[in-house]
Amino acid sequence: MNCDRPAFTDLLARRWHAADSLLCVGLDPDPARFAPGLRGRQRAIHEFCCAIVDATAPYACAFKPQIAYFASQRAEEQLEAVLSHIRQRHPTVPIILDAKRGDIGATAAQYAREAFERYGADAVTLSPFMGHDTIEPFLDYAGRGAFLLCRTSNPGGNDLQMLDVGGERLFERIARLAATQWNRNGQLGLVVGATYPEELARVRALAPELPLLVPGIGAQGGDVLATLRAGQTAAGLGLVINSSRAILYASVGDDFASAAAQAARATRDEINRHRRAA
Amino acid sequence: MNCDRPAFTDLLARRWHAADSLLCVGLDPDPARFAPGLRGRQRAIHEFCCAIVDATAPYACAFKPQIAYFASQRAEEQLEAVLSHIRQRHPTVPIILDAKRGDIGATAAQYAREAFERYGADAVTLSPFMGHDTIEPFLDYAGRGAFLLCRTSNPGGNDLQMLDVGGERLFERIARLAATQWNRNGQLGLVVGATYPEELARVRALAPELPLLVPGIGAQGGDVLATLRAGQTAAGLGLVINSSRAILYASVGDDFASAAAQAARATRDEINRHRRAA
Repeated sequence: MNCDRPAFTDLLARRWHAADSLLCVGLDPDPARFAPGLRGRQRAIHEFCCAIVDATAPYACAFKPQIAYFASQRAEEQLEAVLSHIRQRHPTVPIILDAKRGDIGATAAQYAREAFERYGADAVTLSPFMGHDTIEPFLDYAGRGAFLLCRTSNPGGNDLQMLDVGGERLFERIARLAATQWNRNGQLGLVVGATYPEELARVRALAPELPLLVPGIGAQGGDVLATLRAGQTAAGLGLVINSSRAILYASVGDDFASAAAQAARATRDEINRHRRAA
Repeated sequence: MNCDRPAFTDLLARRWHAADSLLCVGLDPDPARFAPGLRGRQRAIHEFCCAIVDATAPYACAFKPQIAYFASQRAEEQLEAVLSHIRQRHPTVPIILDAKRGDIGATAAQYAREAFERYGADAVTLSPFMGHDTIEPFLDYAGRGAFLLCRTSNPGGNDLQMLDVGGERLFERIARLAATQWNRNGQLGLVVGATYPEELARVRALAPELPLLVPGIGAQGGDVLATLRAGQTAAGLGLVINSSRAILYASVGDDFASAAAQAARATRDEINRHRRAA
């Protein structure tokens, strides 16, 4: 399915430059928040996502569909169609399937097949909790990427990730492993929330070159300037800064797609303003 | 969907006694291993699982469908049909959906809806990596259960779970949290592999009453007597010992269902023999 696609890291590096953007548009379709013109339509999720994708693509370095929003609505086939639409209409924009899978090898191989063969994603989010062998079946897909959960932006993120594991915290251990022995072929990135800039800076220090997927700006309130100062690489890149709800639901009316485009452009521009300042 | 179902813990407690069984039959349907008579059939996954379920139900305290095997085959609708079949034909056997989900609150709510409303599972497996607030949306479904990953049986399980987090190891911290402050209404259990009996005993000491889902016997080689000695409660219960491949693929011929029944009965009986000895 992906035989003609460049490797994820190549797609992302080119797209950062071509779109002059570090903004990732998250696709979390919630039918309860859809515009009146979409309500009751049989393929409303697909129509909503494709309209958002077409409107925001010029400002996006990546798209990140969140699979839970499709699974809860029995909409896997619509998710397939959305990814197919992105690959065909916007072939230079990489797709990160946000699934946070984590299971033993034989089962992980099934999840990898789901992400990369069924959906044709370029990268996937994973949980590192079960260790290196649960990540490897994903890395067996040459050129595909995997972002490991490292330091998450929710309140409960402190419960385990901040524990001292012998001179460093658990999230630091994960960053170190992802930057070194777990990263066989340069396919790994990390998920680090925007709400803790000091910890983002710590992750960047441990993993100077890894792409960092950063949720938590926009609706979740993370600070853009602090995120850039803490997380960008020496080259002013390295970040995939996600915004979902603030873009998707910028308007709840039938002008939702143009409102999303405006919100995406404004967010990209705000990131770029701070990026130059940082 | 589950309004007439008893709470998961009640279902499980009754089933342990009624079937005199601690054996959980895992449903990991792999079309490459199906009998000749099923190959090429459009709903082979559904037919295979229902045949296994009907054949093994007398010996099972629970069924555990692994969602990855369905997702990789575009077979969500068949998974719905398998769970519906179990609820209708075997209403006293609880269903644990093995999904290992773990995400922030708004997304976790979508996954909870998937597990409990769409599929009608009685319990689900979850990753604790992102903390308490990622578990709560599942606990909001009164009476439904959640098994948290604690100490897994794969080689990489050591990478994080065995780290010392200040006088105890990470898996011990999780067991302690699951047995106390995270367990608002007695809905939690833990996943602990059979391959490390000493650690299973440690989890049982920290969580004397929690149900423990134990993969790793059968194909994975865990020792049944050691598992029982380490993990059963004072009442000789408390364990949900999973076997998948050794039962599902006991025969690769068209007698697969009767071979599965024999394997399930033999495994249940072996567990019971050791249970009395332990």
